Amino acid sequence: MAVYTPLSAAELGALIDAYDVGQLVSAKGIAEGVSNSNWLVETTTGRFILTMYEARVAVADLPFFLGLLDHLAARGSPVPRTIHDRQGAAYRMVGGKSVALIQFLPGLSVDFASPAQARAVGEALAGLHRNAADFPHTRANTMALPAWRELFEGCSEEGLASIDPALPPMVSEELAVLGEQWPAALPRSVIHADLFPDNVLLLGERVSGLIDFYFACTDLAAYDLAVTHSAWCFARDGDFRPEVAAALMEGYAAARPLSEEERTALPILARGAALRFMATRSYDWLHTPADALVTRKDPLEFAQRLAFYREAGAAAFA
Amino acid sequence: MAVYTPLSAAELGALIDAYDVGQLVSAKGIAEGVSNSNWLVETTTGRFILTMYEARVAVADLPFFLGLLDHLAARGSPVPRTIHDRQGAAYRMVGGKSVALIQFLPGLSVDFASPAQARAVGEALAGLHRNAADFPHTRANTMALPAWRELFEGCSEEGLASIDPALPPMVSEELAVLGEQWPAALPRSVIHADLFPDNVLLLGERVSGLIDFYFACTDLAAYDLAVTHSAWCFARDGDFRPEVAAALMEGYAAARPLSEEERTALPILARGAALRFMATRSYDWLHTPADALVTRKDPLEFAQRLAFYREAGAAAFA
Repeated sequence: MAVYTPLSAAELGALIDAYDVGQLVSAKGIAEGVSNSNWLVETTTGRFILTMYEARVAVADLPFFLGLLDHLAARGSPVPRTIHDRQGAAYRMVGGKSVALIQFLPGLSVDFASPAQARAVGEALAGLHRNAADFPHTRANTMALPAWRELFEGCSEEGLASIDPALPPMVSEELAVLGEQWPAALPRSVIHADLFPDNVLLLGERVSGLIDFYFACTDLAAYDLAVTHSAWCFARDGDFRPEVAAALMEGYAAARPLSEEERTALPILARGAALRFMATRSYDWLHTPADALVTRKDPLEFAQRLAFYREAGAAAFA
Repeated sequence: MAVYTPLSAAELGALIDAYDVGQLVSAKGIAEGVSNSNWLVETTTGRFILTMYEARVAVADLPFFLGLLDHLAARGSPVPRTIHDRQGAAYRMVGGKSVALIQFLPGLSVDFASPAQARAVGEALAGLHRNAADFPHTRANTMALPAWRELFEGCSEEGLASIDPALPPMVSEELAVLGEQWPAALPRSVIHADLFPDNVLLLGERVSGLIDFYFACTDLAAYDLAVTHSAWCFARDGDFRPEVAAALMEGYAAARPLSEEERTALPILARGAALRFMATRSYDWLHTPADALVTRKDPLEFAQRLAFYREAGAAAFA
């Protein structure tokens, strides 16, 4: 959400000189990304996003993330290309931290999508799944069910109850149900796994960019759709927006038809998606000082969505 | 230092539509400015900085600040022009806050200038003073000696001593000396009053932008030079950099020769400049939580510079 690491003009200039992108003209620290430092960089040849990876992103995962961007961009998905340095490297080290230069993409993130925008998002997500089919690398989902369980354990029952007394029974019941019913045999893909509105750039009703792939991994394609559904189809007051959900589903199916098994699994996958964001948000809520640099996100927002998915079942995906 | 106020894509789009600058293409919140929210905005016709003024900037002062930018830009000073809306207004209101759209200028801020860069900064500052000569508006310096006294009173002796036991006697002695010896009869001008390295954009050795005029006011031109001297002519370890200081003085005098009275007054003006930043930094140090969003700046840095100016006298401006 902020620039954590300052870079001097001299450091920035030396870094940009390592790439064949012209002379550095401007660099502005931007308030973007979950836990990396980002600059909007302008050179004599174009604009780029410079990302410095802070603790949360493992250097060992960078070849997967950055190679994925190149793979998807080459196949026409609206994702930023990785700019390689003069030696061909996808990332470099500066002061003990890894940095990457990626293509700048135009567009703005909306808070609440129109149905036409949701349709475009669904289509772009399906395109991503299709275009990733021949990506040769895999990465385990470190934010799957075992991680949710661990995160909730790290919250403790008392901690969870301090957020809302209804949480502890809801969470343990849900973990049990999902542990039993989680589908294993559905089509797998590289998935974005975090396609919230702030990770999508739009120009009007067109998706101009899918960004922030730092949770991308190999998992069920339909789970990615469920994550996106849980992130896009609710109003500010928490109400379900059926016309946005229908458009998202329609856009997705237009580019990648869902199998009967995938459709049937969506309600349980969406409960998993809601629980996944409850898990990280609850943990961060209890472990982040209220006055810290990072804005804490309300875990109850997703508790409400989980309750909705339990209640609505297949109707949420009609 | 950060984006304090979120603006939705819809709000940004509606705002940009009020200007004749084309369609909104991108907007990134940038980590810039003392206490305003800033976005780097791209439209189909160019790039702009959108500033939303938070509490510290009075709306009543905006016509002065924004009109000054237009005046200086028209006379060739490297300052960003104010973009006026379709009705000709220099600023607008959005959700109870005033916003202005200003020209984007290329360039980077250096931490430590080379002599050639310092010379260019001196010349740009003198050019600003010359070009402001026929600016028809005035604004009192709200950060002059009476304000320093008030800020130190707001620190209390115990508070100051908690930063460093040497501060209370240093401050009271200095306030007394400056109260007696402050020159009144020197040439007045519109001054920037805060021309630190982060408020100057450079492309190599050329000044491409003077920015952040939100302390600009009417006061002694030589005091502005003293402020700039105190901000630019010291190394990271606090050591005076005589070659940078000489270049700054030379650049200034090349564009606006100093009178004998101004030269004579510089040592006392520089002590005032150092005390001014000690005052605001001490106050902020004692009144800002250590873990707040804003980085606290060390008041002792300027206590050290004050001691230097007391010791060096005219030699600092040779």
